[in-house]
Amino acid sequence: MAYRLFIANKNYSSWSMRPWVLLRALQIPFEEVLTPFDGAGSQQAFTHFSPTAKVPCLHDGERVVWDSLAILEYVAEDHATTWPGDRAARAWARCASAEMHSGFAALRDECSMNCALSIDLGTPSEALEKDLTRLDLLWQEGLDTFGGPWLAGDAFTAVDAMFAPVAVRIRGYGIKLGATAMTYNERLLAHPSVADWIEQGVAEPWVDEPHEADCIRGRRIIADRRRQA
Amino acid sequence: MAYRLFIANKNYSSWSMRPWVLLRALQIPFEEVLTPFDGAGSQQAFTHFSPTAKVPCLHDGERVVWDSLAILEYVAEDHATTWPGDRAARAWARCASAEMHSGFAALRDECSMNCALSIDLGTPSEALEKDLTRLDLLWQEGLDTFGGPWLAGDAFTAVDAMFAPVAVRIRGYGIKLGATAMTYNERLLAHPSVADWIEQGVAEPWVDEPHEADCIRGRRIIADRRRQA
Repeated sequence: MAYRLFIANKNYSSWSMRPWVLLRALQIPFEEVLTPFDGAGSQQAFTHFSPTAKVPCLHDGERVVWDSLAILEYVAEDHATTWPGDRAARAWARCASAEMHSGFAALRDECSMNCALSIDLGTPSEALEKDLTRLDLLWQEGLDTFGGPWLAGDAFTAVDAMFAPVAVRIRGYGIKLGATAMTYNERLLAHPSVADWIEQGVAEPWVDEPHEADCIRGRRIIADRRRQA
Repeated sequence: MAYRLFIANKNYSSWSMRPWVLLRALQIPFEEVLTPFDGAGSQQAFTHFSPTAKVPCLHDGERVVWDSLAILEYVAEDHATTWPGDRAARAWARCASAEMHSGFAALRDECSMNCALSIDLGTPSEALEKDLTRLDLLWQEGLDTFGGPWLAGDAFTAVDAMFAPVAVRIRGYGIKLGATAMTYNERLLAHPSVADWIEQGVAEPWVDEPHEADCIRGRRIIADRRRQA
């Protein structure tokens, strides 16, 4: 049986990006099934493959794995390199991934992912400042504790995939973190599977207005890489 | 090394409840360290044991595991019965647990856990109705697919622990689900480790005003089990 990964637009779907980037980074074969957002904010088409009408969703034969973190754990049972081999690093990686899964609400809300746009964020809200302070600390801790160059040691693992959409946001909204975190952010963006996703996102023919509006929110667009193509 | 589980008030802290109930249900030894909320909505004291100032937090010697779902996975590495033995059931249990971890926002927001109070919910919001419809479907699916009596088969596993605080809410706010789900809800409340937590929560000497207000929100209190003691 082969994995089938159901995703939405690469330009917008940060949750889709996570398992896709992991599978590609670990060279695990899978079939990609992309269903674009319909431009009206409806996700009706997603009900055909996902019980929550959300992406991503992994199908493995009859099995339906409908949450991004559960997908990582499912894949980990087949592929031991999904998480770090060292137990302390693995525990840390799972905590950081779970924190991303349920937290960083202001970052996710105020800085929606858009692979193509560079936006002038203006003055961050207090909640966003707090998320960024925590993010900086978290990345620094991982890199310091486990020696880098990846968050939980010398291998790219699921925790790096979990933060890949954050790297897109940091660059897209011109956010500044500490030097260690910024260096990691550039490294993450340059990882072949992350760079591939972004490139494919920018090249997509679809423009979903609700997503565009959510990214812009009246803020100034500095650059749109779709118009440079 | 033994586990030390840092939690907050049993009466209010739904996230603390999850790993505690699991460890007790599986008869895994641990030391409980309870730090009550300070009555002013501050969690300053929690920074001494948790990097996010949130509960629960598991310490295993030097290792700090600071997210509830990551705690379950950490414990699962030491105790195979944390998740179902069957792979399909395990994948489903992880999905349902992860969905609880990042979802059911209206249920969590509008029906804060309070072990002691019975509250007249009134007319549920549209968002809450949607969460309850999904909850009903999810429980029904697990019970039907894996044969019960627990969500993912014949053993009480981490996914049941994840929904234990939901059972408290269903009863406390007088929520009606379908017959299968209601039967499961009663079963979950009657599980010795769930019942123990609730009893200890009701017996606590602390009343945290921000939590009480968040539970009541001007709605009618039908019963307060603390006053019946």
